[in-house]
Amino acid sequence: MSAPRQPVPLTALVEALPSLVPFVGPEAQERNRGRPFKARIGANENVFGPSPKAVEAMCAAAPEIWKYGDSDNHDLKAELARRHGVAPENIVVGEGIDGLFGYLARMMVEPGTPVVTSLGAYPTFNFHITGFGGRLHTVPFRNDHEDLAGLLDAARRDSARLMFLSNPDNPMGTWWRAQDIAGLINALPEKTLLCLDEAYCEFAPPEALAPLDAGNPQVLRFRTFSKAYGMAGARIAYAIGEARLIKSFDKIRNHFGVNRIAQVGALAALHDEAHLAHVIAEVAAARETITGIAAANGLEALGSGANFVAVDCGRDGDFARRVLQGLIERDVFVRMPGVAPLDRCIRVSAGRAFELEAFAAALPQALEHARA
Amino acid sequence: MSAPRQPVPLTALVEALPSLVPFVGPEAQERNRGRPFKARIGANENVFGPSPKAVEAMCAAAPEIWKYGDSDNHDLKAELARRHGVAPENIVVGEGIDGLFGYLARMMVEPGTPVVTSLGAYPTFNFHITGFGGRLHTVPFRNDHEDLAGLLDAARRDSARLMFLSNPDNPMGTWWRAQDIAGLINALPEKTLLCLDEAYCEFAPPEALAPLDAGNPQVLRFRTFSKAYGMAGARIAYAIGEARLIKSFDKIRNHFGVNRIAQVGALAALHDEAHLAHVIAEVAAARETITGIAAANGLEALGSGANFVAVDCGRDGDFARRVLQGLIERDVFVRMPGVAPLDRCIRVSAGRAFELEAFAAALPQALEHARA
Repeated sequence: MSAPRQPVPLTALVEALPSLVPFVGPEAQERNRGRPFKARIGANENVFGPSPKAVEAMCAAAPEIWKYGDSDNHDLKAELARRHGVAPENIVVGEGIDGLFGYLARMMVEPGTPVVTSLGAYPTFNFHITGFGGRLHTVPFRNDHEDLAGLLDAARRDSARLMFLSNPDNPMGTWWRAQDIAGLINALPEKTLLCLDEAYCEFAPPEALAPLDAGNPQVLRFRTFSKAYGMAGARIAYAIGEARLIKSFDKIRNHFGVNRIAQVGALAALHDEAHLAHVIAEVAAARETITGIAAANGLEALGSGANFVAVDCGRDGDFARRVLQGLIERDVFVRMPGVAPLDRCIRVSAGRAFELEAFAAALPQALEHARA
Repeated sequence: MSAPRQPVPLTALVEALPSLVPFVGPEAQERNRGRPFKARIGANENVFGPSPKAVEAMCAAAPEIWKYGDSDNHDLKAELARRHGVAPENIVVGEGIDGLFGYLARMMVEPGTPVVTSLGAYPTFNFHITGFGGRLHTVPFRNDHEDLAGLLDAARRDSARLMFLSNPDNPMGTWWRAQDIAGLINALPEKTLLCLDEAYCEFAPPEALAPLDAGNPQVLRFRTFSKAYGMAGARIAYAIGEARLIKSFDKIRNHFGVNRIAQVGALAALHDEAHLAHVIAEVAAARETITGIAAANGLEALGSGANFVAVDCGRDGDFARRVLQGLIERDVFVRMPGVAPLDRCIRVSAGRAFELEAFAAALPQALEHARA
């Protein structure tokens, strides 16, 4: 009899990584709880859904799913280029912003590479940076905004190769004006690439949108069909940047990695501007409703340029975590920031009437429970 | 005025990678040619399409695409586990086999890591290995089969960490019997992981299917919904292996990376066994037809356990490339192996009647053109 088989070792880097999952999905929570949520307003999904034209196009494409998608994402890139006033060579389409962040980390990060982000910002970006051995330097939020001057200081001090910024930001929903972002870009140290995550930009006021300069090799802008276009489950997003940098993605990306139905759906979604306007209006109204529900409970909501609202529970993180727990026990799925002082808030995604009614009904009890 | 912006350097590893694309997709070829193909039988796609039940399920899921997919792929894994007689912990679902190969390379390969494969085997596997700096050792096919003894010798000699084997293999379509694969597995050097690509296994005779031992930490089996299930564009596949190794994928994978519609479609496809049987029968008939067309032109087709047939054009690679070119000029999309002596063949995917008729009509002219 042969000797028992031993596990084959992984790379030292991967062996040392924690088996952490950045987020536990709502389905997993529902399985653990043994019952479904009444309101799914925790993952900043767009409950108002995709364009009916996108749905129609996706259904029409379903019987053709035996074909691989177009490895060039040609038609979608052509339309995106037209809209953004850039060349198709300035755009790379990928498997969601998460997928693109993974590729970016692989392109830029090796063990010890310094990367700057805000303390409490998007965990999946950090997941990929540490996954490639990068050294994360985190800068605290200032007045619930990502601290532009602080990020620049840290990038200079640490010779950062990458700087992460979200505008509007997640998890607070605050945003900077175009000229503030432009000032940051102008002041970037010369070997720092700005990874500008604009997943929520369609929900923000126009003055939050920094001008686009696709000739600048130090900036990559990330946009997605997951939020305003209501297609989170489709896994399709894109980055805009200087052509040489964009072409580098071809060295490592899965060329046939984008789902064919997603390609077709995204293109159809772009053409339904009326639906996009409808979604944006619904989200704006839902933000008002959430703010009102908070106020009715004596809580203050932060101003938001995204499809969610950070509601300040008025005490510390332990208190907010108890409020969150109370909401989840009452079948309302919400999330909250992971670090102080942001974690005095819970983060509530824009919902339809029935979802926000469930939130409004559960919040007073959750607060009472938390105070007890 | 500020100094012109310089490109931000990538990692030395990625800077050194070629900007190569493993395959040019048929859509890209059509754009270059300026006209569509009549027969799309070059990418081993399943022209017989997905189960109508899968199409129905995907359409029903389309309006729900605003939700991220289940990060655990719970329902699909549960059903796959049941069918394979393993635990869900023995299965990882990913973004196609290409996506899983990328993850595997990231887990196992660092600069200089030795990896063994067959000369002319799946290029996208090689793309990921070299993309992480791995050192590929290639073993020639022997009698148009992957050379099991040669692969073992190379793995021992080079202390390979990974060995790639496809069964049935691509691009020749030949296959080994279960006992041959079992013998290879038993003889693996103790630090070598076998990456057993079974993308085409549903098309092969039952005796080609090696027994499954999910307790063996030295073997990962890769299966896909891209081929027999007709869902190449959905990007969904899975690997079966020892639980600890499978869990390691969680350290690096995009947890929300699988398309929600693909999850639903794959589960529905599994339940339609009649459609799977129909596809397998159609593919077997198409292989016979291709073999007959080859014979009518004085060419020999190799026996195939996959959904394609390698047709030996009877001379060298230059000749076969001219035949291929002649077919493409006559609007028949086919591909061929990249290295000698395999490249004496063209590779023709199973097609419907109209596609094989187009092939049958074009082949005599393509041969004449090549001989001229």
